[in-house]
Amino acid sequence: MNTAPAPHTLTRPDTPFAVVDVHKALRNVERLARKADQLGVTLRPHVKTAKSLDIAALLHDGTPCPVTVSTLAEAEAFADGGYTDITYAVGIDPHKLPRVVALLRRGVTLRVLLDSREQVEFVVAAAREAGIAIPAQIEIDCDGHRGGLKPDAPELTAIGRILHDAGCLDGVLAHAGESYFAFSTEEQRLAAKNERDTAVAAAESLRAAGLPVDTVSVGSTPTAHAAEDLTGVTELRAGNYVFFDLVMAGLGVCQVDDLALSVVVTVIGHRPEYGWIVTDGGWMAMSRDRGTANQPTDQGYGLVTDLDGNLIPHLVMSAASQEHGTLTARDGATLPDLPVGTRLRILPNHACATAAQHHGYHIIDSSRPTREAPSIQAVWDRVSGW
Amino acid sequence: MNTAPAPHTLTRPDTPFAVVDVHKALRNVERLARKADQLGVTLRPHVKTAKSLDIAALLHDGTPCPVTVSTLAEAEAFADGGYTDITYAVGIDPHKLPRVVALLRRGVTLRVLLDSREQVEFVVAAAREAGIAIPAQIEIDCDGHRGGLKPDAPELTAIGRILHDAGCLDGVLAHAGESYFAFSTEEQRLAAKNERDTAVAAAESLRAAGLPVDTVSVGSTPTAHAAEDLTGVTELRAGNYVFFDLVMAGLGVCQVDDLALSVVVTVIGHRPEYGWIVTDGGWMAMSRDRGTANQPTDQGYGLVTDLDGNLIPHLVMSAASQEHGTLTARDGATLPDLPVGTRLRILPNHACATAAQHHGYHIIDSSRPTREAPSIQAVWDRVSGW
Repeated sequence: MNTAPAPHTLTRPDTPFAVVDVHKALRNVERLARKADQLGVTLRPHVKTAKSLDIAALLHDGTPCPVTVSTLAEAEAFADGGYTDITYAVGIDPHKLPRVVALLRRGVTLRVLLDSREQVEFVVAAAREAGIAIPAQIEIDCDGHRGGLKPDAPELTAIGRILHDAGCLDGVLAHAGESYFAFSTEEQRLAAKNERDTAVAAAESLRAAGLPVDTVSVGSTPTAHAAEDLTGVTELRAGNYVFFDLVMAGLGVCQVDDLALSVVVTVIGHRPEYGWIVTDGGWMAMSRDRGTANQPTDQGYGLVTDLDGNLIPHLVMSAASQEHGTLTARDGATLPDLPVGTRLRILPNHACATAAQHHGYHIIDSSRPTREAPSIQAVWDRVSGW
Repeated sequence: MNTAPAPHTLTRPDTPFAVVDVHKALRNVERLARKADQLGVTLRPHVKTAKSLDIAALLHDGTPCPVTVSTLAEAEAFADGGYTDITYAVGIDPHKLPRVVALLRRGVTLRVLLDSREQVEFVVAAAREAGIAIPAQIEIDCDGHRGGLKPDAPELTAIGRILHDAGCLDGVLAHAGESYFAFSTEEQRLAAKNERDTAVAAAESLRAAGLPVDTVSVGSTPTAHAAEDLTGVTELRAGNYVFFDLVMAGLGVCQVDDLALSVVVTVIGHRPEYGWIVTDGGWMAMSRDRGTANQPTDQGYGLVTDLDGNLIPHLVMSAASQEHGTLTARDGATLPDLPVGTRLRILPNHACATAAQHHGYHIIDSSRPTREAPSIQAVWDRVSGW
């Protein structure tokens, strides 16, 4: 569903706008698909980063695959696009159950997530009222990052039993959110092992209580790439990896060259007395995300490339207001000569946050080099809202 | 243009969603309108915060008034809504001049901003080619915050003369962006005086060179509220003040009770072992903006109220992932009992950034108290993109 044939190059649309290099995205997709194959698990990509049916079509040769979503708006859009195997990986708000039931009635296997008896009671009541099973996963806390029960929590089997008796128990899900702060390969491997061990322990607790567990789901972009053994796990989730970003590059999960998402901006001024180049790409275009501020190398609001994607050494987007970006030189380097009107691309800290600032993606393919600026192959929409 | 009649209360729409209390917004609007009257200047509100024709209708009793915009998408939407006096207050990117010319041809007085000879040459060439005057303001730097020329820069009169000769010189514009870091009333007064003095000095430089200056425009939300004397200034700009936010409350420009924008979220879990209440409102709903992190009191991702807007003491949204918010108690307070399914409102750090995460606003009016949750009077759209 390419919403607009776009015969232009990156020199044409008014800036700022988001660009996806489909060559890099596909390379990232294939890398993790191979990894999941090697580990013997189903890959269930999280579509919360791109939120795009067109980007998702890269995941599995254009055919619907199992996906994870972060909102019911994504679930509904993906259901409309023919996806029938969806996990909604945010703890369920009871008010949202009517939309869950409506998707199940359409034939979509939509799994919900929960970690409390209160939620279980709402889910079981909604299932009973609708006369339909609502497949539910119990969130397992592997690292104190967010929601979930510990695998040894007494609530776990109690909740599991109520779900099972209502025909709603699907399995367990863990997310190693703390792996975003694991700065060495070894720490990431340990985070992956811990995520797997915790999820499997929870599944074993349930099974020991006589409760069948179909799905044992784990994943985060760092742990998915670091995992070495997923015995007992049935599926792997990751989302950010399709685009990657400077946070992931800072963790060593990818190289800066793997970043598939960037934002095209235009130079609108110079303040040589302060060492600034001013662009028309501010935080509205990049988001306020400063994820690398907590990393050994703070990349400001992003690194800077030319329109072809070649990094401009030492240049960083160091400040942002709503519609202004400030580029400065690091390491005592002199500012490059970039006249007013020059277009640049900014590589973001956090792809999920930057993508959310845009209605869609201008698609380029860096495997097809051009003599002029990269051609825009298509403009792809994204889903937004809740 | 209320896009949907909405007979429900804040208990009904699926969370998260943005709410505007029209009573507070109107109170904020009237406060600055009185101030501008007292100062004897035209108020030219910046619509970049709300980006909504419906909210803008509050500014001037439903009739179009002079406005400032941050994108051409806003300019085009406001032109469609009957606004004919618009300043585009971001340094002009030459590629965007065709859209500027198109708006001028529609009869909209759209002023552009610039601070370099390069931009002047592009503007003058576009004006000559189109056979139309493009009214231009020269950006003046009053505090080293962003773009602009110093009032004593030799370039100033050179640029002014080229613009004047092409029939394009409209005036000068200054923005005291550093006033967002002025933590006392006295500092804000000094920032306002400096902004005024610098803009007027630039206008006088141009006039001394025989160049007529119609517009002398100044403003930021803090300086607009702090200004005591705007002699020589013709117009005052401010945007954030319609909604206000925790950054402005932290500066003392408003009270927390003045905040007109909030986000409704739902409790989806509890982690008593960590002291957390988990909600379905993460950074996707609030933005990544952490503006109060640089203030004496860091308000996390926001303060928390009940659905009626009463602050819940000591509770703060201290962490966020994409679709999860974490609420914690400060000052050693115990967490309030907020069961799964409870709806709350979060007051944001930065209204411009939080509003941008939403398609529109659910409108309530706290001057009409209700026995149940506040009624939704309307759902108002906002403009997005560039």
